[in-house]
Amino acid sequence: MMEKIRRNERMSAMLKMLAGAPNRIFTLSSFCDLFGAAKSTMSEDVDALQAVLQAFDLGQVETVTGAAGGVRYRPVVSPEKARRVVFELCRRLSGPERVLPGGFLYYSDVLSDPEIVSGIGEIIATRFYEKAPDFVLTMETTGIPVAYATANALGVPVVIARHSSKVYEGSAVNINYVAGSGAIETMSLSRRAVRENQKALIVDDFLRGGGTARGMADMMREFGVEVAGMAFVMAACLPEKKRVSDAMALMTVEIRDGENAEAVVTPASWL
Amino acid sequence: MMEKIRRNERMSAMLKMLAGAPNRIFTLSSFCDLFGAAKSTMSEDVDALQAVLQAFDLGQVETVTGAAGGVRYRPVVSPEKARRVVFELCRRLSGPERVLPGGFLYYSDVLSDPEIVSGIGEIIATRFYEKAPDFVLTMETTGIPVAYATANALGVPVVIARHSSKVYEGSAVNINYVAGSGAIETMSLSRRAVRENQKALIVDDFLRGGGTARGMADMMREFGVEVAGMAFVMAACLPEKKRVSDAMALMTVEIRDGENAEAVVTPASWL
Repeated sequence: MMEKIRRNERMSAMLKMLAGAPNRIFTLSSFCDLFGAAKSTMSEDVDALQAVLQAFDLGQVETVTGAAGGVRYRPVVSPEKARRVVFELCRRLSGPERVLPGGFLYYSDVLSDPEIVSGIGEIIATRFYEKAPDFVLTMETTGIPVAYATANALGVPVVIARHSSKVYEGSAVNINYVAGSGAIETMSLSRRAVRENQKALIVDDFLRGGGTARGMADMMREFGVEVAGMAFVMAACLPEKKRVSDAMALMTVEIRDGENAEAVVTPASWL
Repeated sequence: MMEKIRRNERMSAMLKMLAGAPNRIFTLSSFCDLFGAAKSTMSEDVDALQAVLQAFDLGQVETVTGAAGGVRYRPVVSPEKARRVVFELCRRLSGPERVLPGGFLYYSDVLSDPEIVSGIGEIIATRFYEKAPDFVLTMETTGIPVAYATANALGVPVVIARHSSKVYEGSAVNINYVAGSGAIETMSLSRRAVRENQKALIVDDFLRGGGTARGMADMMREFGVEVAGMAFVMAACLPEKKRVSDAMALMTVEIRDGENAEAVVTPASWL
């Protein structure tokens, strides 16, 4: 432990701890004990932290009042920063070299970069803090990193639905759903994964027809869980009519087919 | 922007930026420009940050010299903290209520908690910074959150091998491997996912016989990629002989079968 703890040291250490567990409420007295400081001093530190985070667009430190009160950090992304991040993503994802045979967009290199993925998770989380979901639900496989990053920013677990039930997840609920291809597929979720009356945020990387998203919503109904929202990194322009109606996406994807096939990725209008 | 930027404000903002992109080198001059401070002042800030992080066991800020030099943050976990985290995990994962039919351990609730998962990722990353892997490789599905968290701490992409090739990942390399059940299964990886002469860190949640891990190592050979290491959250005691020899795990799992079946999860001996 340090001899004498100065304000700059307290502020740095406190921010690191808060930001290491986003949206978790730490009691002010836990910091008082740790730093040997008075409550009034710690409150001043919290105010100073909030000012600097706001000045550099680095999220929010907030004091929560009440019995379970304390201090928490949320990686809230400003509209300007969200726009900047998404415009840059659109630039990277657009172009002829990203079109795969069959008119699919190749994007898994972009969604394998943790810095990009955590940025996306923070943008999605910012839109859903007020809904206070109890967990993030995704369907294996490619949406898992973004779902995890969103769950991390919200400070809640990530729950993963599977194509089939696994022995190491215990008894499961299976449902059938209509996949993008039109085929009937199976979705499986461990009985232990969620509890009745919780609220789910559905997160996935790509919304095409919405069959998988609809399947996840149906699965939540089986568990008696409310769907607090649905968020996607990208939504395809086509088909225009999706099987879900209340989904938000960061970008829309259009594949201009033909001799000079090209991917045109544009920011969603709400940005 | 703030009127006048004080040391406590510079230190907090700098730490937030550095810790938001672990292991990425930021030039000192980028911070000088941002804060309107001299290089000598910023160097003092870096030293002060390093002292406070060390005092509270919150990772390391380091100055990297040379042409591509600058400052970076690594969420290095001290041996004491790693031990504390793993002992607590063992406590949570042990017990009769975690044994599933067939003698499997139920653990997906624990590995769905982002705070736990990022802690595990930081412990694994701490052991592999010196090996400087270019990416983290995992096989779908349950290891993805831990692989992502490890990749985030290392500041490298996460690459996900699939059970079958997908149209939206372009052309792929497929190999066959012997799964835990003894059955021959297929593993598929997009050709675009990795490049020759890179170094891979293989990360997964559970090591039983080592068939999947061996498959991932074989896959890397197909791509001309060196395996810099293999890390697992848990390793089963049985079978004692694994198909891979150089794997590390944080915990070992023994299922004591019989009338009073019980899971006994113990910290690895290197901790």
